[in-house]
Order: sequence, then structure tokens, then C-alpha cells
Amino acid sequence: MTIFVSPRIKLAVKREGKEKTLIRVGELLVGGEKVIVIAGPCSVESREQILETARSVRLSGASMLRGGAFKPRTLPYSFQGLGEEGLKLLAEAREETGLPVVTEVMAPQDVKTVEAYTDILQIGARNMQNFPLLKRVAGSAKPVLLKRGFSSTIEEWLGAAEYILHGGNQDVILCERGIRTFTKLTRFTLDVTAVPLVKNLSHLPVIVDPSHGTGHSSLVSPMAKAAIAAGADGLMIEVHPNPEEAKSDGIQSITTEEFQKLMKDIYPVATAVGRRL
Amino acid sequence: MTIFVSPRIKLAVKREGKEKTLIRVGELLVGGEKVIVIAGPCSVESREQILETARSVRLSGASMLRGGAFKPRTLPYSFQGLGEEGLKLLAEAREETGLPVVTEVMAPQDVKTVEAYTDILQIGARNMQNFPLLKRVAGSAKPVLLKRGFSSTIEEWLGAAEYILHGGNQDVILCERGIRTFTKLTRFTLDVTAVPLVKNLSHLPVIVDPSHGTGHSSLVSPMAKAAIAAGADGLMIEVHPNPEEAKSDGIQSITTEEFQKLMKDIYPVATAVGRRL
Amino acid sequence: MTIFVSPRIKLAVKREGKEKTLIRVGELLVGGEKVIVIAGPCSVESREQILETARSVRLSGASMLRGGAFKPRTLPYSFQGLGEEGLKLLAEAREETGLPVVTEVMAPQDVKTVEAYTDILQIGARNMQNFPLLKRVAGSAKPVLLKRGFSSTIEEWLGAAEYILHGGNQDVILCERGIRTFTKLTRFTLDVTAVPLVKNLSHLPVIVDPSHGTGHSSLVSPMAKAAIAAGADGLMIEVHPNPEEAKSDGIQSITTEEFQKLMKDIYPVATAVGRRL
Amino acid sequence: MTIFVSPRIKLAVKREGKEKTLIRVGELLVGGEKVIVIAGPCSVESREQILETARSVRLSGASMLRGGAFKPRTLPYSFQGLGEEGLKLLAEAREETGLPVVTEVMAPQDVKTVEAYTDILQIGARNMQNFPLLKRVAGSAKPVLLKRGFSSTIEEWLGAAEYILHGGNQDVILCERGIRTFTKLTRFTLDVTAVPLVKNLSHLPVIVDPSHGTGHSSLVSPMAKAAIAAGADGLMIEVHPNPEEAKSDGIQSITTEEFQKLMKDIYPVATAVGRRL
Repeated sequence: MTIFVSPRIKLAVKREGKEKTLIRVGELLVGGEKVIVIAGPCSVESREQILETARSVRLSGASMLRGGAFKPRTLPYSFQGLGEEGLKLLAEAREETGLPVVTEVMAPQDVKTVEAYTDILQIGARNMQNFPLLKRVAGSAKPVLLKRGFSSTIEEWLGAAEYILHGGNQDVILCERGIRTFTKLTRFTLDVTAVPLVKNLSHLPVIVDPSHGTGHSSLVSPMAKAAIAAGADGLMIEVHPNPEEAKSDGIQSITTEEFQKLMKDIYPVATAVGRRL
Repeated sequence: MTIFVSPRIKLAVKREGKEKTLIRVGELLVGGEKVIVIAGPCSVESREQILETARSVRLSGASMLRGGAFKPRTLPYSFQGLGEEGLKLLAEAREETGLPVVTEVMAPQDVKTVEAYTDILQIGARNMQNFPLLKRVAGSAKPVLLKRGFSSTIEEWLGAAEYILHGGNQDVILCERGIRTFTKLTRFTLDVTAVPLVKNLSHLPVIVDPSHGTGHSSLVSPMAKAAIAAGADGLMIEVHPNPEEAKSDGIQSITTEEFQKLMKDIYPVATAVGRRL
Repeated sequence: MTIFVSPRIKLAVKREGKEKTLIRVGELLVGGEKVIVIAGPCSVESREQILETARSVRLSGASMLRGGAFKPRTLPYSFQGLGEEGLKLLAEAREETGLPVVTEVMAPQDVKTVEAYTDILQIGARNMQNFPLLKRVAGSAKPVLLKRGFSSTIEEWLGAAEYILHGGNQDVILCERGIRTFTKLTRFTLDVTAVPLVKNLSHLPVIVDPSHGTGHSSLVSPMAKAAIAAGADGLMIEVHPNPEEAKSDGIQSITTEEFQKLMKDIYPVATAVGRRL
Repeated sequence: MTIFVSPRIKLAVKREGKEKTLIRVGELLVGGEKVIVIAGPCSVESREQILETARSVRLSGASMLRGGAFKPRTLPYSFQGLGEEGLKLLAEAREETGLPVVTEVMAPQDVKTVEAYTDILQIGARNMQNFPLLKRVAGSAKPVLLKRGFSSTIEEWLGAAEYILHGGNQDVILCERGIRTFTKLTRFTLDVTAVPLVKNLSHLPVIVDPSHGTGHSSLVSPMAKAAIAAGADGLMIEVHPNPEEAKSDGIQSITTEEFQKLMKDIYPVATAVGRRL
């Protein structure tokens, strides 16, 4: 496939015969045979909520714990996250369960605080082209999970990753989370094709977030299976002990029981494409 | 999921406790346990081309043969298809291989001719809301394969199916083939999520066309796997003995060898989700 | 601007030094100094409704009367238009007011009937790539108003016009009516930029439909002004004596009083860009 | 029009009977009878370039000078702007010409530096939902020009403005600059309808950037006219003394001569809609 803009520019993100990048997070390898499953609530809401979720998803086989402490919200009157208090609760959940933690950082000045608690720094979709933030995390020793902007092209997404690699941090995990289209019944359109496309173009691992990508809990499991079948290196799933009471994204969160079932459902699909959970 | 517009209107396409529709085509059942694979060239170009393709895809395990005799093309100077001569070649290929035939009909006045040769009448994406055509095929005894318009919502797609059911023809197979978005590296964005969504909303079978949906041969196999994992009842794949010489859509057609490999690749995925090929 | 695909293909639609096309409709010239305003209801509903509207819009300065007799509707249970009875009412309104009539034709087999009553054959957005229909109206002596498909590119739109020119009918009026995007507060996104773009690329006249393009009556007048300022050769406006009781598109229709005001509002804008009403 | 999400939430951005906001910038009022024209290069490249442009656009009647010192670029290898050196050159140009200056700020930590030189702080499209940045400029005494994200809904755009108003800065100018759609011949699709829509919903002034919105210099003037006709309170235009040598966005920049002509072209349109230049 010769479908990348500016073929003259030598980009660090390009595959071009390089080995696939493997990213070590604790005892895990992202980008290898194992399909990584990152699970947890949209927002960290309380000690009880995050600990209960962490224990449950660990038992079901999750690889890592997600949870937002700094939340980007459309209106200033919505719940903005617990901030550093939320980070501490995530660290406590890691302490107890052993699950590495992924959480979002929204501003350059917060990177130092967030990296003190987290195992992976998440850059959210709205910040994919926040270049000062990209330059800042390029100087971090922690891996970066870079979500695709919801109307960013593949070139722009890889260009954003290039800022991080160019700045010195080679550990970038890409995450497809849905693009904005004319469709109305789903919150976004999950661009599953981005997975094989990016794997053709780049050596970086790619995971998929079917929770944001669809916006409906009933669509999460089938799209998790689709993502793995298409070659994704992992999943990011919103799980909440009680989605109806979630402070954000309840409609797309699955329960801990549904997550347990999802893990069973995706197991044979991973095997079918030569991967393991 | 309570996400369908106009809940007051009683629509024949809606699931609402109905049995899944099974559509008989010769000895095949579409919508059952077996995943249907419809393979063949974009256009019927010659007797040799269609026969060679039909023999090869049958050996690889295809369920049906596709091929266009009437072609919708952006410019009047492009190859418009062989017309009735193409239909005769398709019928000859069926005669020899036993594969049922799927081909597109573009105008109400052509339906009688096309149904004399084909097993399934295909309505193309550009004609999804060609209501006189929908009303005409509603009066046919042949099943209809209804492609989703490339910027049609799910409601509009099901509304188009409703015209056919309401007109008396209950045998409608829906086909997701990609929607138009801002993306540039793929021809369309394959909306894989439409599969579980439509299966939630309707009792009709849904298949996926990853050839048009992606526009690149290298993306066809991974997206075929994704479609099956998401629950698709079948696939529609463009196969050409020599894609570089195809009169239309060469860049997205796979070779007969690649098709053979694709059939092997999707086999374990179908098994993993409780289906068979 | 060298921005047209396939520059090697010699297309009849291309400007390339040709004179601008002027299309005669009765005593009117479309594409000249005068900005043409086509006004009337979405659907012809009754004798009283169409006559009342015709008289009123004529008094306000409309150039032509619009009204649908064959209606493309998402569901088969919606009002499908009065058919030939509607055409007769349009002809009666022309007889009384002298306004030429524009109405949609949806199927090749209806062209003969529709052209017996109308002055301009309208091809709707959903039929922009209904190639058998395009080929049929290419053989008509009546001018064709070709609406842009709501997710068609400019190249596809001009390609559709090429079918008509190539088939022998040189009188094609293009009509921008909004494209489908992620926006939610408007029914479509009116692509006003298509006007200067198409006028750069082609010699054909271009008009704009701000009623479908926005979907809200309150946005029709400002977007009518914008269209004229951008260089449009005309407007197509939905006007209904009582929008709240309209059988289709009531929310985007303006009243006859609002239309009178609109005509006053656009007058100075037309003058400002060297045109007249 | 009752088309705004969450009608229960009392938002500071909503119109609801409030007076239109007038924003004082030096001796200018944004949002009043006068249409504001902000002109200048995409990037400040050199002392000569910015001074020459400033002198020329002032003579042609521009109201303010634009120019980027901190540039968001897709790849780290592209020209990133002159930084504070660029800000000093902008200040020098203001000193000489008297034109107030608008320039982009990309990170919270840069706000203090940028506000020391500029008259208006610009938030770029890619940062429209950079909430830490919005919160930071909410604490500034300088007005903010908030560009619409290229795939942001009107609600999200107004939500971003709400962060600034809520944080204490009432002086927000909204700027429509094109949204991302499936179209290919233009860089973005300028959503002119956003102008009357936002003016219905909010009391804040709205201006339009037809340079980014179209991506082609030949489309800038017609779309500037369209924007004013639709009710825009101002324009933002990229002007470069020598677009072919521009370090960024040359293809969409107009020359100083073309800008002079544009100012003459828009004059009668402004008058036609009751505004003045």
C-alpha cells in the first residue's frame, strides 16, 4: 500500500521494515501476542467504586485498570473529575490488585503529577493535536496512550504520534475510539478499518475503545470481537459497577457481570486470529 | 435499546419479538448458522473471466457468485457493463458451477429481464432510495439484496427495506458497504457497528461488503474477519483473476489466490462466534 | 484553479473558456443577470393550496412555481404526492399566474407524463446518480434541474450533469441543497462554497435551496442572502400558506408573508453583487 | 427556534432576551454595526513580511492584524512559528499602523507572554476543547477569539465559550472556520449557516474565516461576501505579500492586491444588509 502522504518525509512512526514496537508496562507487553484489555470506569468517583471495579475486572481477566481523574467535559457545570484525589485512588487500586493504571492528562503542567501515579499517560481525543501537551509527554519516561481525535485523519494521528517519538518517547500506543460522521444511532462511528490500516503503515501497537466508539453498552461486546478479529492489540472498555448511577458515560458503560461475559466472548476470537488473552 | 425513530409506527422490518428471517436461495439459507460468502468480479467482462472466477471461488468455498451486468458509473464514458449479454454469462456460470447468482438491477423497466437470469436482485447503494425501483422489486418473486446508501442512516436503510416488505416481498438481505466520511486513506468507512445495531433492531439478515467498504485489497481480509466477528450473516467480496486489468474497481479486488486464503482465514473466526462457513 | 479530477477527460460540463450557459424558460433566462426565484410548497396538496401559493409568490416577485407531485419519502406510509392529479393542478396554477412550473420526476417511465405538464424537470437529490433516469431526461426537450446528492462530491455532481449533456440535453441547472455532515441543529449543511466552486469549473447555472439546506424556516432568509452574495443564479424556496399543516417539510417552509419579506431582503444583496431580481 | 440541548441548564452564552454583546478592542467595537475585518499572514515570518502586510491591509481598510507566532502543525518538522520573536514583530506592526493584533495561544503557560503583546487571544480550532487553556484565558483581561473545532457541533462550541464566560471573561468572539466533511475540492466546508444559527442562540458576536474554511484563494472573496450577507460580525482573512513563498497555508492566502479588491467587493454587500465596513 503506497497510501501515505508525503512519502519523502522520513517519519519515525512509519513501519518500513522496522520490527513491531513492543511496549513494556510492568510485566505486560503491549503489541505482542497477548491482547491487552484495559477496563474500568469513565471517571473515578469514589474509593469504593474504583476498588470494587478493579477487583472485579481483575478477576475477569483484565490486563490494566482505566479511570479518569481529570475529565474533559462539554460544559463547565458537569463533573470535572476528582483530580489528584482520583489519582491516589487509582494508585491504591493498583496496589491492591496489581493492575497497571491508565489515566488521562489534559495539561502540560499536570504531567508531573499524573506520571507520579499512573503507569500509562493517556492523551484524550480532544487533545490529540494539543502540541504543547504532546511535546511535554514526549519527555516523560511513561508510555503514552494516544487516542485518535474524533475527526482526525490517519495521517494527522500518526503525525501526533511523531511528535512524541521525535521528542524522545518511543512508547506510544495508538487507540481508535470512533470518528464523527452523519450517523445518529451511535455516538460515533467506530473506524475498525483503522486497525489494519495503521498496522500496515506503522510499527506502533493499536488498541480499540468500543465504549466511546459506539456509545451503547449493547454494542460493546460485538465491536470488541470485531476489533480483535481485525488485528487490534488490545481493548479499552468502560466498566462500572452501576452504570445507571455513573457520573459520566453511563449509557455506554457495561456492568462488571457484562464485562465477565465479554471476556469469555472474546477469548475464542483472539484464539481464532492467533492471539491470546 | 430504544433508539428507533417514530416508535409509534408499526414497521414490518422491526424485530419486536419476531423470529429472525431466513431466506432460501436454492439450497442455501441466508440468515442461519452458515455465513454466506458471495464472491466474484465487480463487472462481468468476458465469458472467460466470469467462468474462471466462478470455478475458482466455488473451489475455495464461496456460496454464491456476484458480477455486474448493469454498472452505475460516475461518468458516461466509463464501462457501463455488458447488459443482457452479461446476465447470460452469469447464468452460464451458474449452470456450470451450481453457484446462485447475485447481480444489480438499476431501473424498474429492467427488473423483468434481470430476474429471468439472477437468483438475487441487488439494489445498489446509489439506488437505495430509488423508490419506484424498490416498489418494483417488491413485486418480484426473487430475494432482494439491499445495499446501504453511502450516506444513509440506519433508519433510512430500514425504511427502504420497509418499501419492499410492504410491497409484498419478504426476502430482503441488507448489505453494509461503507459510508462516506472525512477519511481519505480508505474509499469509504466500513460501518461494522451497523451489523449488531441492525440485528438488534430488525429480523432481517445483514451481510457486509469489505471490498467497497475499504477500497483496498489489503484491507479486505481483516475487515471480513471483523464483520463475521461482529455477527454478520455473510460477506460480499470482489474477486478478479487479474485485478490490474479489471475494467472497474481493480484496486479493491482480490485475486482468486487471495480469496482462497481469505476463506481459510475467516473459517476459525466464524467458528469462534458460533457460526460455520 | 486546477482542482478537477481526470483532467485528461474532455467533459462537456467543463467551463474551459466556454460562454456561460443561458437557459430559456418561457420568457425567463436562467444564468443571466437576473436571479431566478423558484417558490412553492414541498408537495402539491390541494387545488386551493397550490393556487393560493402561486398567486401570492407571484405577487411577491417569484420567477417560477415549485411543487411536488411525486414525492420520495423515507417510509411507504408517508404521503407520496398526488401524482398526475398534482401535475394538473400545477398546470392550472401556471395557466392562471403565468409562472413556469418546476416539479420532480422520479422514474424513467414517468418522464413522458411529467414533461407534458411541467416547464422544468427536477431530478431530486436521492436520484442524482439514478443513471437510467438521467439518460431518459437527456432525451427530453425540457430543461433539467439537477439537485446535488446530499453526499455527492462536486465531481460526481458534474458527472451526473455530464450524462444529461452527453445524452443531448444541454439545458441543465444545478441546485445545491445541503450535504450530510455531523451537524445536528440543521437538517443538512448548506455548502454555499459549492456555488463559486462550480462556477469556476463549469459553464452551467447554479441555484441554491436554503429550505432543504437548513431545515429551519428561520434560517432560510439569511442563507438566501448568503447564496446570492456567493454568486448563485437563483434560489429555490419552500413556501406554504400554512406550514404547520403541511403534509411534508412544514418545519422548513416559510409562510407567504415571510416570503414577501424575503424578497425584499434579498433585493439589495442582489444589487450589491451586480445582479437583479 | 427551540433547538438547543439541555434547555434546563441556564447558560451564560444563551441569548434569551439579553442584549447583544459588544466587545471593545482599542477604538473598535466588535458585534456592532461595523463589520470587522482581521487580515494578515498565517504565520509571522519576518519583520519585513509582517510590516509590509500590516501597512498594506491597513490602507485597504482592515480593522485588525492577524499573524501566528505559535503554530499548530501536523508534523514536528514543519515550521512551528517564531514564538516570542513573532509576538514582538506583531507589536511593532501595531505600533506603526495602529491596528490591534490577534494571535494564537496554544498552551496555558504561554498565556502570560502572549497577552503581553496581543490585543485579542486566539484559541485555535484544534484547541477549542482544550479545557485547561479555556480556563486559563477565562482569567485574562484580553478578549478571546474562539475558533470552532473543525468537527465540533454548535452546542460544543457554545459550551467551550461557556467555560470562558463562566471563568470570568465576558469578551468572547466566536469564529466559524469550516468543518470537516466528505468533500474533497475544498479543505473544509465553510458552515455559513452557523452564523445565523449562533446569532439566534447566543448574544456573542460571530465572525467567519473563509481562508481556512475553503482552502483556496479563489474562493475567499465570494465566501467573504456570503458570510457578511448571512449576518457575520466580521471576517478573518489570510493575506500574504507573496503567497507562493509562504511558510504555511500559501494556497489559501490572497495577495495584498487581492485583499484590496476584496474590501471593495464586500463594501456594497455590507451596506445591503444594514452594516458598514
